[in-house]
Formats: sequence, C-alpha cells, structure tokens
Amino acid sequence: MKTVTTSARLRKAVKAARREGKTIGFVPTMGFLHAGHMSLVERARRENDLVVVSIFVNPTQFGPNEDYHAYPRDEKRDLAMLEQAGVDIAFLPAADEMYPKGFSTYVLQEGTLTGTLCGRSRPGHFRGVTTIVAKLFNLVRPDQAYFGQKDAQQVAVIRQMVKDLNFDVRIVDCPIVREPDGLALSSRNTYLDPDQRRDARVISQALFEARAAIESGQRDAAAVRELVRSRIASVPSVMIDYVEVVDADDLTPLQRLRGRVMIAVAVKIGRPRLIDNIQLTVQ
Amino acid sequence: MKTVTTSARLRKAVKAARREGKTIGFVPTMGFLHAGHMSLVERARRENDLVVVSIFVNPTQFGPNEDYHAYPRDEKRDLAMLEQAGVDIAFLPAADEMYPKGFSTYVLQEGTLTGTLCGRSRPGHFRGVTTIVAKLFNLVRPDQAYFGQKDAQQVAVIRQMVKDLNFDVRIVDCPIVREPDGLALSSRNTYLDPDQRRDARVISQALFEARAAIESGQRDAAAVRELVRSRIASVPSVMIDYVEVVDADDLTPLQRLRGRVMIAVAVKIGRPRLIDNIQLTVQ
Repeated sequence: MKTVTTSARLRKAVKAARREGKTIGFVPTMGFLHAGHMSLVERARRENDLVVVSIFVNPTQFGPNEDYHAYPRDEKRDLAMLEQAGVDIAFLPAADEMYPKGFSTYVLQEGTLTGTLCGRSRPGHFRGVTTIVAKLFNLVRPDQAYFGQKDAQQVAVIRQMVKDLNFDVRIVDCPIVREPDGLALSSRNTYLDPDQRRDARVISQALFEARAAIESGQRDAAAVRELVRSRIASVPSVMIDYVEVVDADDLTPLQRLRGRVMIAVAVKIGRPRLIDNIQLTVQ
Repeated sequence: MKTVTTSARLRKAVKAARREGKTIGFVPTMGFLHAGHMSLVERARRENDLVVVSIFVNPTQFGPNEDYHAYPRDEKRDLAMLEQAGVDIAFLPAADEMYPKGFSTYVLQEGTLTGTLCGRSRPGHFRGVTTIVAKLFNLVRPDQAYFGQKDAQQVAVIRQMVKDLNFDVRIVDCPIVREPDGLALSSRNTYLDPDQRRDARVISQALFEARAAIESGQRDAAAVRELVRSRIASVPSVMIDYVEVVDADDLTPLQRLRGRVMIAVAVKIGRPRLIDNIQLTVQ
C-alpha cells in the first residue's frame, strides 16, 4: 500500500494506474475506521483493479460548535487496517493541503435534500461535504465511489451533485453495519460512556419496532413517527434532534407510506450526536 | 466534425479519444462566434489531438434583467466556422439538458475575485460561470481549456476554481482580438447601432491612452483611473459602470502601479453592456 499526503502525488499515482486501463474504486472516510468503513473497502476491493481510500477529517463540514477538534483519530491503526484489506493507495492530506490560504470555491446544494434532516440541524454541513467530495472526485477520478447508508442523506446529496455537475462516477451505497445489540457503527460511538452506550440501544430498537409495525400493515407516517419518538423518549438520557419519515430518494416527508421509505433519526446522548435510519420498500 | 447535443454522447465521444491516448483541448463558448473565439479554437487545434468546442448560452450566468433571451444566436454559421477550423466535436446542448428539472447544485466562489468588477454589477453571474464550466470540465475532462483575456475576471475566477476544486486542467488565456479601430470583439457588439458603434471606440482609446501614460512613467493608480474615466465620459452616450485599476492576478485595487496590472472597464451604450481591459507589467 502506498501512503500519500499531497494532491500532486495522489494524482500521479492514480494516473499511472489509469494509463494501464485499471478501474478505480474510491472510499472517502474521516478515519477512525470500523467495520462499517471496512465493508465499503472490501466491496471496492472486489469490484475494482485499484482501490483508493482517503482519511481526512474535513473541517468545512463541521459547525463552529461541533466536534472537529475532538473527532477521534488513529492513523496508525487505520493504515494497518487498510493495508490488511488490500488497499492500494491511502490518501491522508493535511487540512492546509486541501484548503490552502485563499481557498474560496465551494460546491453548494440548494433545496430539499440539504434543507431537511441533518441539513436543518447542521447548517453548512452539506456544503462542506459536497465541496470535499467534489475535490476528492477530481483528484481520484474514480469509476466507483462507496458510501455507507448510515449517512443516507449524504448519499442522496452526493448522488444529486454527481448528476448536476456531471461527475463521471457511479455512487455505490452499502448497508449499515451494526453492533450485535443493533447500534449502528459510528466513529462517534467512542464518545459514549458505558451508561450512554447502553441507552443508545434504544435508537435502533425504536427503528426496528417501526419496521415491524409497517410490516404488520401500518401505513400512517405520523403513527410510525410517534412510535419511534415515544420509544426513544422513554430513555431520559437520549435527546431527540429529529425523527422523520421520508421518501428514501428525495427525502420529502410522507403522510402515507408507499414506495421506498426511510425512517431517519438523530439524537444527542450527552455530548455525542448520533444518527441512524432504516429504509424499506412498502407496497 | 461531430455535432452532439447530449451529455451522454459527448462523454462517449471524448472517452473514445482518450482511450487512444489523445490530448484534449476544450473551448467553451456562448456561440455567435467571432475572430476572438476562433483565435482560441486555432490555438486549441495547434496544441491538442482532439478539439471540443461547446456552444451554450448559459442561462444561470444571466441576471433577471439581462439579455439572456436577446443574446445573439446563429448555430448554422457557428458550426460552419468550427468545421472550417478543424474542430473534432461541437457540443450544443439544450438548456434542459444542462439544467434538468430538480437541478440544485452550484459552484460558488466567495471573496475578492467574484466580489469586484463585474461581480459587483452582475450578482450571481460568476456562480453561473463556475457552475457551467465545472459541468463542462467534468463532461470533457480536457487537458487544456482556452479562454479569452477580454473576460479577464472570468479567467481569474476559473483559475481559482480549478485550483480549489482540484480540476486536472491547464487554463490557457489568449489575447484580446480587436477591430481595426480598437474595439474588442464581442458577440454583444452586434447590438450597437452605427452611432453607438462609432462611440464605442472611446473604450479602447481610453485604455490605450492610459497605457501610454504608464509607459511614460505614470505610477499613480488614481490618476490612471481618472484619465480613463474622463476620456470615456467625454462621449455622452457611453455610461460608465466601472473603471478600475487592479492587480491582474488577484484583482485587488492598486494605489501605486507595480507588477502585473490590469485596467478594466465596463460601460453601457444604450442597452448593450460592454467590457474591455488592458494588462501590462510595470517595473
């Protein structure tokens, strides 16, 4: 595995592979890798000749009062995991490599996709996401890029960006990986103390109960939302940011459940903010 | 010459050439071609294996009260000129091919480069420019892209975008082409009636007099600005939008002339808005 820290060296390494006709798979991450990330890496490894993984805690997608500086980092462990998984190129740029002095161009999405759910709670977050992903796509020019469904809104936003700005890349979204008790894997789970970790189980439990209700015939979005909301509210340490029942593709709120449906949740448990969702198709 | 109207067909045609190892030169235009455009096309032809020219009057770079609908168009004549010049691919998309329903992702530049000169008079203009150029760069993936120095601010904005978003393209800027009496070529010159056309000579005359003054030792930016301003104001039909003396690279206003200097002018003559500039290096 080649580890590179500058855009120039990354571009050179990728170009050499492209000249040989290799297909390129790309997994952008913020590091502190877990089995969720590794499921993306493994799929990229199976489907491409060359696999590039970036590790970059992207400052522009954090708000001023968010956890940019506290975000967990462990480069050494991350690199060992990527090496073990057969990754070809790891890209670990410094912040001023990606945002040098005078940086002033952003990719911005307007409308529903960025105005709802996490976009409402984290103004500017998706501008940071689309900007860094556009930069990384231009550097890597992957054939396929891999994203986790845990960040379902991010996937929808990036799909729209790819379409709108004519990026020539296929977006592959991969299932959420969960702990045995249901908690969605997240680098931010490391913030939880043992009590919070136990209480966090209620997020996925509420979502699974909602799925069971829908599978038993529930089609009223407000009832599903209330089921999830009240289940989570039963655990006092878990503060709800939002519970929404939306169309899984365009993220607009639903009244009757039909087609591809997503139930999305964001909560705070103490300081950490955690998100989760389930997606299902309703006849 | 191949004429294509869809992004999918453009991408396919360009990919075939790239697979053969051809270098790609790209000239984005809004059509109604003149010798200024053709100087870009000829240079692209000399420097690349494959030359792609786009003709697209980009709605997002026009303000609500600007001349989008009136902008001159003559596809048949344009295509004949491109064919004659040895262009390989002409791309003429419809507006809804580039901006389909639901389009919502823009490339936006903040700061001095877009906040001054035409950016002040035409809010949103450069957002439209960076968005369409980003789209076209992603479709064509050129090695070189060619722009005219008449739109000097546009060149500066695009250079910054390329750097910030890591586009892998070399920006080539080419000298202004002028009528025998000095008027900078522009598709908008066609709006001028004979009196206005005669009066328009004052723009370049004022700029050339300023250059002569600088070459004779004038180093005070305010004096140069006043020289240009008063010379243009001597023709009553010509309304000044701005006259600015700026650093040619970062477009910040100058007090003493030194280094790469640009004198930039925008005027209205009746309805049409015309721009011009000269750039020179001052010891």
